[in-house]
Amino acid sequence: MRKTKQNAEPDVVAANGLMDRRIFLAGSAIAAGGMSTTAGAEPLVDAPWMKVPGAPFTPYGQPSTHESKTARIFASQPGTTGTGASRTPHHLLDGMITPNGLHFERHHSGIPDIDPNAHRLLIHGLVKRPLVFTLAALARYPMESRIAFIECGGNSAALYQKDPAALGVQALHGLVSCAEWTGVKLSILLEEAGVDPKAHWLVAEGADAAGMSRSAPLAKAMDDALIALYQNGERVRPSNGYPMRLLLPGYEGNMQVKWLRRLKLTEGPTMTKDETSKYTILQRDGKSLQFCFPQECKSIVTRPSPGLNLQGPGLYEISGLAWSGTGKITKVEVSADGGASWAPAALQGPVLSMALTRFRMAWRWNGGPAVLQSRATDDSGAVQPTRAKLIADRGAKTIYHFNAIASWAVGESGEVKHAYA
Amino acid sequence: MRKTKQNAEPDVVAANGLMDRRIFLAGSAIAAGGMSTTAGAEPLVDAPWMKVPGAPFTPYGQPSTHESKTARIFASQPGTTGTGASRTPHHLLDGMITPNGLHFERHHSGIPDIDPNAHRLLIHGLVKRPLVFTLAALARYPMESRIAFIECGGNSAALYQKDPAALGVQALHGLVSCAEWTGVKLSILLEEAGVDPKAHWLVAEGADAAGMSRSAPLAKAMDDALIALYQNGERVRPSNGYPMRLLLPGYEGNMQVKWLRRLKLTEGPTMTKDETSKYTILQRDGKSLQFCFPQECKSIVTRPSPGLNLQGPGLYEISGLAWSGTGKITKVEVSADGGASWAPAALQGPVLSMALTRFRMAWRWNGGPAVLQSRATDDSGAVQPTRAKLIADRGAKTIYHFNAIASWAVGESGEVKHAYA
Repeated sequence: MRKTKQNAEPDVVAANGLMDRRIFLAGSAIAAGGMSTTAGAEPLVDAPWMKVPGAPFTPYGQPSTHESKTARIFASQPGTTGTGASRTPHHLLDGMITPNGLHFERHHSGIPDIDPNAHRLLIHGLVKRPLVFTLAALARYPMESRIAFIECGGNSAALYQKDPAALGVQALHGLVSCAEWTGVKLSILLEEAGVDPKAHWLVAEGADAAGMSRSAPLAKAMDDALIALYQNGERVRPSNGYPMRLLLPGYEGNMQVKWLRRLKLTEGPTMTKDETSKYTILQRDGKSLQFCFPQECKSIVTRPSPGLNLQGPGLYEISGLAWSGTGKITKVEVSADGGASWAPAALQGPVLSMALTRFRMAWRWNGGPAVLQSRATDDSGAVQPTRAKLIADRGAKTIYHFNAIASWAVGESGEVKHAYA
Repeated sequence: MRKTKQNAEPDVVAANGLMDRRIFLAGSAIAAGGMSTTAGAEPLVDAPWMKVPGAPFTPYGQPSTHESKTARIFASQPGTTGTGASRTPHHLLDGMITPNGLHFERHHSGIPDIDPNAHRLLIHGLVKRPLVFTLAALARYPMESRIAFIECGGNSAALYQKDPAALGVQALHGLVSCAEWTGVKLSILLEEAGVDPKAHWLVAEGADAAGMSRSAPLAKAMDDALIALYQNGERVRPSNGYPMRLLLPGYEGNMQVKWLRRLKLTEGPTMTKDETSKYTILQRDGKSLQFCFPQECKSIVTRPSPGLNLQGPGLYEISGLAWSGTGKITKVEVSADGGASWAPAALQGPVLSMALTRFRMAWRWNGGPAVLQSRATDDSGAVQPTRAKLIADRGAKTIYHFNAIASWAVGESGEVKHAYA
């Protein structure tokens, strides 16, 4: 129920200005807050672009030339071609879908230029009938679509460092993206090949120059894995595995092997480079956790964030993304005082299992210092931990699976900076 | 319940080979059907692209160069620049999201090159306080996202013609697309401006050289209209209204004014060119239906379709899209015998109101003639009519709002052609 207007702060839901979203409907005097300006004499002045015919049609459209900053940033490893990662500019996006041109990338030897007619997918190893699939053959199988996030196991790694890096949401957390993936259920292909009862794992190998390989449990392959052929409606992009990638919803991105050329069923894991020397979680005691598959429950505030400084006191929307590799997001709480008080954000529907979920919160910035945080909960009951707790439990020797609460500090000038709190 | 194997056709659900989707799981001998080939000796042969480092990172990614046919087709009106329409290649896509580069376009004087910092949205007319919004001002309001189709009122117009045009799904039905749109609820901005009780309509005007204008009921504007700023996560594309368009979920595409520069509240409709000489439905008696807002309940089979010929008898997936401008799709039925028998297709979740809904049906083609159709039902109870009934009711003098059942004829060679049935 709406609180009475007698209350001095009728719509406050947590400290330091977190407001009920009704505040935006509560009356123009508050909502305006200097955001709009009054005007309106007719006739209107026609802008220059109304005085000339516009551009003609194109077969395949592109973003506005005014949006050149809405781009991935990337770093390659010295002496390599395309080995490294590129990151999604979440501070400049909204919604839950990542457009294909901005989906994050992680390559181990660049993007292969695969001829789709020559590409083959082999299913072999512990099966009754090894099978080879062309793209044309796969086109005849029943398809399934699902909106799913993919997150690199190394996303947010900088937050293990002792001091907060002076970076923004793209550089810190940009190794996660979300798309509608469509393809053939792997279980159908495995049943056709006939699974040997001794098989409990498989190894997936990519057709890139690195021959990138990861092992995955057969149970996941039989549950919800897809051979993804389409990404947001069109064929999977080269940077995301054209013409096909393995989709293991919710699992570490590195396992969702791109340019997939074979799946070999095995008794145990194959112990590839990327699951032994890499993508293991080094513990305080020097031992490593291996085969940490699902990306944990997590959230980030994307706006405000570094680079998007506040333009004076007044109302803002705090917006961000939450996800969990084990299921649906059930709650995202937001704090404007570094975690001392919290209020639940609105979740944008549809809230889908193992997809990015957009959250939104109204905030009246009073011009003073603030520390913005978000804390996600998923339907398994998992709650995003504080950074202090994550590091107390795990140490900070690893670069993988950082899912703790992140903080943006807002200064009196409106500047937003990465902080620990 | 599964029928017994004693039955000669245990998984048949309608005539001419429509099958329960379990057929794909029912056993490899059936499912394979010549689609895959057995093989698998190790070591595998490495393709040429595995022997060289791949391509490096790019700020904004593009489709594979092998996918150049996955493109919009378009026709401009003679003597104009960018006046006409371009169409989405649905036969080459899957899922419900249309990637931004392939969203259909309808322009009346090309695509204006708008400077986002100079663009303004004016709300005026019958309001207490005329207001002007910059893009920066709108960024402070609460956002909402929704996955919504947009369909041109003239989509599928060729099916009013006496004889079936020898065209495919793109040329016939390509003026519909679907994206995740994010923006500010128009009701919030109107409440801030203060709606005069005399206002019952508004007119929306674009900042293109045509000054494209349409009237819409205020009730719709207050219900679910958005000032859309983002399309599939990134800023709305120039061809779809950069930096902002009006989103009127489910309504005729022409009303969802692109490059939106003003909304003027009025007592009645403004009777603009595009709602008087165009976008009215000419009846048999020479009178026109005006202000036909929602796009009606409709579906199309996208695969198989012309250009995607069948490769010999055996199992296929029939796949298509259904939508309704008044709500959710509740059922899509498929026929393989020109409407004599029907079976319900599987609907791909999430099924969202006023969004494209993907449907899927298993089909065993016996190599003989077939006529493929789909028939959608929405949650208002509306059922897609036959072409004969639509034309009997309405005549065929108009080019707008064709939503009847469409047919693809499959010949013995596997060729797929547009047909009337």
